[in-house]
Amino acid sequence: MPTIKLKAFTLLERVREQSPVIHHLTNWVTIYDCAQVVKVLGASPVMAHAQEEVEEMVQLASALVLNIGTLTVQLVEAMKIAARAANAKGIPVVLDVCGAGATSFRDRTCFELLDEARIDLIKGNASEVARISGAQVRTKGVDAAPVEIDLEEVALSLALRRKCTVVITGPEDLVVDGSRRFVVKNGHPLMSRVVGTGCMVASVIGTFAAVEPDLALAAAAGLICFNVAAELAAELSPGPGSFKVKLFDCLDALDEPTLAELRRVSG
Amino acid sequence: MPTIKLKAFTLLERVREQSPVIHHLTNWVTIYDCAQVVKVLGASPVMAHAQEEVEEMVQLASALVLNIGTLTVQLVEAMKIAARAANAKGIPVVLDVCGAGATSFRDRTCFELLDEARIDLIKGNASEVARISGAQVRTKGVDAAPVEIDLEEVALSLALRRKCTVVITGPEDLVVDGSRRFVVKNGHPLMSRVVGTGCMVASVIGTFAAVEPDLALAAAAGLICFNVAAELAAELSPGPGSFKVKLFDCLDALDEPTLAELRRVSG
Amino acid sequence: MPTIKLKAFTLLERVREQSPVIHHLTNWVTIYDCAQVVKVLGASPVMAHAQEEVEEMVQLASALVLNIGTLTVQLVEAMKIAARAANAKGIPVVLDVCGAGATSFRDRTCFELLDEARIDLIKGNASEVARISGAQVRTKGVDAAPVEIDLEEVALSLALRRKCTVVITGPEDLVVDGSRRFVVKNGHPLMSRVVGTGCMVASVIGTFAAVEPDLALAAAAGLICFNVAAELAAELSPGPGSFKVKLFDCLDALDEPTLAELRRVSG
Repeated sequence: MPTIKLKAFTLLERVREQSPVIHHLTNWVTIYDCAQVVKVLGASPVMAHAQEEVEEMVQLASALVLNIGTLTVQLVEAMKIAARAANAKGIPVVLDVCGAGATSFRDRTCFELLDEARIDLIKGNASEVARISGAQVRTKGVDAAPVEIDLEEVALSLALRRKCTVVITGPEDLVVDGSRRFVVKNGHPLMSRVVGTGCMVASVIGTFAAVEPDLALAAAAGLICFNVAAELAAELSPGPGSFKVKLFDCLDALDEPTLAELRRVSG
Repeated sequence: MPTIKLKAFTLLERVREQSPVIHHLTNWVTIYDCAQVVKVLGASPVMAHAQEEVEEMVQLASALVLNIGTLTVQLVEAMKIAARAANAKGIPVVLDVCGAGATSFRDRTCFELLDEARIDLIKGNASEVARISGAQVRTKGVDAAPVEIDLEEVALSLALRRKCTVVITGPEDLVVDGSRRFVVKNGHPLMSRVVGTGCMVASVIGTFAAVEPDLALAAAAGLICFNVAAELAAELSPGPGSFKVKLFDCLDALDEPTLAELRRVSG
Repeated sequence: MPTIKLKAFTLLERVREQSPVIHHLTNWVTIYDCAQVVKVLGASPVMAHAQEEVEEMVQLASALVLNIGTLTVQLVEAMKIAARAANAKGIPVVLDVCGAGATSFRDRTCFELLDEARIDLIKGNASEVARISGAQVRTKGVDAAPVEIDLEEVALSLALRRKCTVVITGPEDLVVDGSRRFVVKNGHPLMSRVVGTGCMVASVIGTFAAVEPDLALAAAAGLICFNVAAELAAELSPGPGSFKVKLFDCLDALDEPTLAELRRVSG
């Protein structure tokens, strides 16, 4: 436990000091929020998606975040180019399997990305990750649907098969790689009342992965920071509109004593 | 009058209980706001636009909202596929004729959508709807321009010819189908100082249409809820930036006594 | 000095009175903010980007703003069509060289736009403008990177060679045309903690350019208004989330005494 407590703030400080460039190919709904959350963490977002430039843009980046929320055939091709360039450069690739299970196009895209490039971390809610792991579940749009499966088993089997770290978000967030498991218990119900918190989580994890090669640790640290900021923001907010504004304020101001006091994580 | 009063909150409760999926093919400017307004109403937005997946995504949805704000040829094709799938499934299709009259490409697109699929509800400001009805008016960008025409006549003739419900937004919002007419007098001038309130109205109407087959009633109820929330938000806001934040807070918190007290509707 | 003081508010009043249409072809990250900042200034944004309609949309506009933040081949083609239509109509064209230097695709696009149409004003941060001027510098993503060059020399040589006005944003903003030079010293560090302030600056400048043919004066006036509003917003804001909300409130409420008191400009 003390190890993680230390790491969360240590990694946030590292982000603030190094200000890594985080390259995204993401969706058009929350693209601003993904960029802004990276910025308030102290890093530098770049959101280029043209096939003509993603390979070159990756050369400036310290992590790559892919999100299939509003995918098209062209965007998927650009994602493959970017992911292979990131693999060649040796920077981590985070895939948000946003809406997996909703259509066969989404599922197929996820499998293609996983087959044609090395994805270092897969992030989704329970039903999305279950679908990518091969379980037979149905997503209700992009929102979390209850699925009666053993999430740890799903995450572990996917992590082992794809040789990656797996993050399943929900009331408690689960981080699993082949050998370890963290459960982050911070967060607030208002997060699910705001479009974009899920996408921002992938960007936060990508940002922490840019400064820490142990991706399970990076993901847990990023989740702790984001979710503690969400708890602080919720206390200041009469509703979901205010909550999102305060979330950026609180992430920007996050300090060590607050993290030390509020963090709830096991593993 | 008591019928409408009862209905507005009854329908809002139905949205909150059923949490219908509202599928959008919309513009890139206000796509976040359209998703977020659906979310704060208690429903579930999905914004997929690839031709490869819209037909399948419609199968998860209870209403489809189309908005031509930043249309392209590809997006229009996807809209047609989605609209025909929605027709086949029997869910309502709402078309926001955003910017109609500004270019011939927009007008042509609207007519193609109306000819090649069943559009259940057309929503626009005075000049946009007038153009779609065949009247000779000129839109100034996407903002409302004064047009010297009889709006009720325009709306009614369009409703009858296209066999749909027509909503004309403005200082007072007009809802017309072949047989009835509602005028919603709630709202606030700050709404026109914020990009996206018009687009959000179409999303709100689509959300209410997902739970109420009487589309004129659904539209009037949605408008009352949105516009009353806007009045509440305006009281709390020193300017348009704050207003948009508070609008989401107030919609989220909207309750029956407030709606009963503030609603101003005739018809 | 009094001339500029007077002009800033005079031009803002002209914007509010004339409410010009400002046509954008911009990026998907900050497209909302670009539209909203134009709206709170009192003007009317339009964001159409389809090649099929940009030429016609330009006919409604009083200025054109191009931003290559998330460019694609298709978007660049549409930009060229729009720019040539703007040239033919005689309205000013503002180019935000967002991310120039990050990839050769971006640089090439900027040069193509500059060669194939008349660009009336180029705006970027130090490293972006330096790259477009031909200097050998490297951009770090889209954020400003320190470059050890004489900015005034770079700006002046670019202004003379391309026969345009050049704006270099930074802690102090520099406006240069062939014969004059303004330095706007207003602004606040929180601006660089929020994604989109740079893009909004181009939209603000485009809006002022729509009502004032002297583009250096228009740019300086727009920068003064935007940056003074940013100073006011920063005083009211505990962090970057709140800052962006208050920025729109403060721009909307900006009046002559405030501008007269707070403006810091030389030239």
